Amino acid sequence: MAESPVIPIVGGTGALGAGLAARWARAGASIAIGSRSAERAEAAAATLRETVPNATVEGLLNEEAARRAEIVFLTVPFRAQSENLNNLRESLQPGQILVDCTVPLAAAVSGKATRSLGVWQGSAAQQAQEMVPDGVTVVAALHTVGAPTLADLESPLGEDVPVCGDRKADKARVARLIELIPGLRAVNAGPLETARIVEQLTPLLISVNSRYKTHAGIRFTGLPDGDPWQ
Amino acid sequence: MAESPVIPIVGGTGALGAGLAARWARAGASIAIGSRSAERAEAAAATLRETVPNATVEGLLNEEAARRAEIVFLTVPFRAQSENLNNLRESLQPGQILVDCTVPLAAAVSGKATRSLGVWQGSAAQQAQEMVPDGVTVVAALHTVGAPTLADLESPLGEDVPVCGDRKADKARVARLIELIPGLRAVNAGPLETARIVEQLTPLLISVNSRYKTHAGIRFTGLPDGDPWQ
Repeated sequence: MAESPVIPIVGGTGALGAGLAARWARAGASIAIGSRSAERAEAAAATLRETVPNATVEGLLNEEAARRAEIVFLTVPFRAQSENLNNLRESLQPGQILVDCTVPLAAAVSGKATRSLGVWQGSAAQQAQEMVPDGVTVVAALHTVGAPTLADLESPLGEDVPVCGDRKADKARVARLIELIPGLRAVNAGPLETARIVEQLTPLLISVNSRYKTHAGIRFTGLPDGDPWQ
Repeated sequence: MAESPVIPIVGGTGALGAGLAARWARAGASIAIGSRSAERAEAAAATLRETVPNATVEGLLNEEAARRAEIVFLTVPFRAQSENLNNLRESLQPGQILVDCTVPLAAAVSGKATRSLGVWQGSAAQQAQEMVPDGVTVVAALHTVGAPTLADLESPLGEDVPVCGDRKADKARVARLIELIPGLRAVNAGPLETARIVEQLTPLLISVNSRYKTHAGIRFTGLPDGDPWQ
């Protein structure tokens, strides 16, 4: 365990968080599943230990989970994003990176999942950057990897994860964690403002999924070989 | 020539139009290159005949090109879209399909090509639908295939073309033309309103291109085999 990274997932009892937790646990990472309820967090941790027998996983309150490592993943529905960020104000410390996976689907206000809401700041990720304590950096990622695809552990992945952020070094650290999961390639999509576009990929994929009865992902063609994160 | 479809390209002297014309000509389609200038159109046709020796191609005024077939492609920069659609009002007839390839890049007003403009109607394609004569249907497609990639005829393509429109039958007809070009797969991305998202893929790819020094394209993973257009 000493060598494996700890990955805190705020909202880790939801579908996306649980899917990521399972894939990371299988890759040997230690997981801190966060929830507003300690009981639900511990139940999710117990489920994960059944799914991945050697999993190193704790179930914690979100505020405790967020203190477990420098890089914290936020995987909550858009309607809960602000509340969660408010609750994390005392937990997040300067130097930490918050990876925002939020997608402002219109479904948050009973609209269609193929439509999105306009966010005044430009994107959910930019809203998060406005809300985190000073010195905490937001990186946006993991919008397009479907929870059902992640949950089906025997199904090989083979898709890209666009990563947005204002500093390449931060994005590189997040990319290393994403690429612990076999079959995911982190792609440098640009500054945080590009989250305006990347967050829209999810309603696009939902539209494609409904037409093709599938769980589609995104891949960029034409990228050169080699490690772009060095 | 009798069996090959005629494909009119309004704005066919631009980079995207010329690239598409060359690929389609090589695939055996007949091309009507449209321009505001008959001389420039004929010059582009002559160039195409040099690039693709057996090309069947005419150079025409845009208004004449738009009368050559039921399905007309519009490949002009956003800043010229409205003017072109105004000029086509007498040419386009009920029953025709206008395939809008316009991307509202902020570069149209000297902004960044990694940013886009908000269009009141929701997207450039929806603006086009508002401007075409009654009975003409707009389908949005071909935003993400890079002109340099198309122009390099020896470079194999291998990417997807999201197609947006309100009637599947219209999208299917456009898809057949797109898929005449080897290596392009047309994907049903949803109704015309989804062009709001698909048009944003271009600034996203431009952002990726600048970081990876490449000409990236988009591919959807997880789509089932078989012909989705039947």
